[in-house]
Amino acid sequence: MKLATIENGTPDGALVVVSADGSRHLPAGMTMQAALDSWNASEPALRALAERLDAGEGDSTNGIAFAAPLPRAWQWLDGSAYRSHGELMETLFGTEPPPPGRPLMYQGLSHQFLSATANVPLPREEDGIDFEGEFGIVTDFVPMGVTPEQALSHIKLLVQINDWSLRALAPVEMKTGFGWIHAKPACSVAPFAVTPDVLGDAWRDGRVHLPLAVDWNGERFGNAEGGAMEFGFHELVAHAASTRSLCAGTIIGSGTVSNSNFREIGSACIAERRGIEMLDHGKPSTSFMHFGDTVRMEARLRDGSLLFGAIEQKVVKG
Amino acid sequence: MKLATIENGTPDGALVVVSADGSRHLPAGMTMQAALDSWNASEPALRALAERLDAGEGDSTNGIAFAAPLPRAWQWLDGSAYRSHGELMETLFGTEPPPPGRPLMYQGLSHQFLSATANVPLPREEDGIDFEGEFGIVTDFVPMGVTPEQALSHIKLLVQINDWSLRALAPVEMKTGFGWIHAKPACSVAPFAVTPDVLGDAWRDGRVHLPLAVDWNGERFGNAEGGAMEFGFHELVAHAASTRSLCAGTIIGSGTVSNSNFREIGSACIAERRGIEMLDHGKPSTSFMHFGDTVRMEARLRDGSLLFGAIEQKVVKG
Repeated sequence: MKLATIENGTPDGALVVVSADGSRHLPAGMTMQAALDSWNASEPALRALAERLDAGEGDSTNGIAFAAPLPRAWQWLDGSAYRSHGELMETLFGTEPPPPGRPLMYQGLSHQFLSATANVPLPREEDGIDFEGEFGIVTDFVPMGVTPEQALSHIKLLVQINDWSLRALAPVEMKTGFGWIHAKPACSVAPFAVTPDVLGDAWRDGRVHLPLAVDWNGERFGNAEGGAMEFGFHELVAHAASTRSLCAGTIIGSGTVSNSNFREIGSACIAERRGIEMLDHGKPSTSFMHFGDTVRMEARLRDGSLLFGAIEQKVVKG
Repeated sequence: MKLATIENGTPDGALVVVSADGSRHLPAGMTMQAALDSWNASEPALRALAERLDAGEGDSTNGIAFAAPLPRAWQWLDGSAYRSHGELMETLFGTEPPPPGRPLMYQGLSHQFLSATANVPLPREEDGIDFEGEFGIVTDFVPMGVTPEQALSHIKLLVQINDWSLRALAPVEMKTGFGWIHAKPACSVAPFAVTPDVLGDAWRDGRVHLPLAVDWNGERFGNAEGGAMEFGFHELVAHAASTRSLCAGTIIGSGTVSNSNFREIGSACIAERRGIEMLDHGKPSTSFMHFGDTVRMEARLRDGSLLFGAIEQKVVKG
């Protein structure tokens, strides 16, 4: 089942169910947050709408302005679960590797998630504007202390995220140990949130086993496989819920999708390429984004169909 | 003007205006978040209710169950603006001092703020359960890039916070540079949020110039002055808004209230006392909280009246 949120002038928009091919939609009569607040009750009603869409009902999605599936959320926790990404960041920024055996995670800005096609207003090019292609999950209410196995059943939706980063501002914030405020403005999210069953066996071990294609200014920049996470999403959920319960609508990100054969497959963020240049030539040569630059991100099922829709954005002076 | 939220079975509760002495209330017919979303429109209506309370109207607050003023918020950013607190933490945890000239701040759990009298369920005593007495502010919408002077006018309400911390879990999370997930469960907030004018000249330079009295298991533990912040709240707001706009209802904390004469005036958290013991005896001797322990925190105006009401809580096994 594919869900999306249509902009309607309210902060949370209107939830719709979308046909498998993304071409038609039916209104759900609630918000995404409300659906997640009582998922066991709302899921059957939403699935009934999905069946009507399968039978050909619904209005065209042409010209529809999709918001992010959750235009705002009560909690956004971003992991960094791809070790090859972490190693390249340690190379680039001269930071220490993290303690082994536990996921990396920070709490980020959640009061605004940009739509997949919104311009991205940022204050200064010299802040080191970078995209970060990620997969993410959305939970219902998760009790404190769940095991990874229990956590798996709380993963209700999968999403695709561009976690914007301001790289020049990141190292000084990391050094404080307090995490990021300046380096992490609002993320963007692809239009469709999907239930895990849509992926078939591409959803297993709490991981999205699909490549994430990233184009920068119209040229392929990376196509790394999502399945290479050191910790699965279920382990990230359990990590997050160790000393807190998670509210319904908690979004957890994978961190930048990255594979150890990054020289062949490319990267989902510019900082990684700069890390590779550090390794190969002793210094980075690729610059970060300029105002007017575009980025496109998409994931396709093995049959070639777009899964989450596409993120396609331009960075502008804010 | 004093505002509070009454528990009514909904996640956001019902906003009330409270008389200056906290004894009577009148319903505002909206939530605190709604009031903050359009503060310029709602403030005159709320002030009209406050005048009716001044004239003797309103129902008794006896037996009323107050929630936190914002039972949940879209954004909670906690500073660490008292240098003497920072120095004692560096002593206790062996961490480096932060880069000078810029505030310290992290983004924390905001989907739940506990009421001032709720039991606090935490999983394990050995996590190092600690209270942290703080002052805080609540903003309306703040545009990206405001100056500290502009930020001052966006500070609509002052609050008093207990920022619960799990000290044994903090150092390993700090070392990652990603900030805290495990070490920072939900905060508690005193019942009354007040407009800055209530403080008279005790609100100046973006600081609360009042002592915060902290009692642990019925014994005075600290009474530090709030005015000793290295950076005022207006500077914390401007710092937070450097690369993002702040949503209405953003709560920003001062960090643990602390004064450099901590040996005389005491502390607003246990970790500080342990830091002092490190300085004086080479090792800490005061243990963190046990299940069943209580903490009380209150701030009084110079005339002796309770400003925010009191936080009075018990830690229990969660």
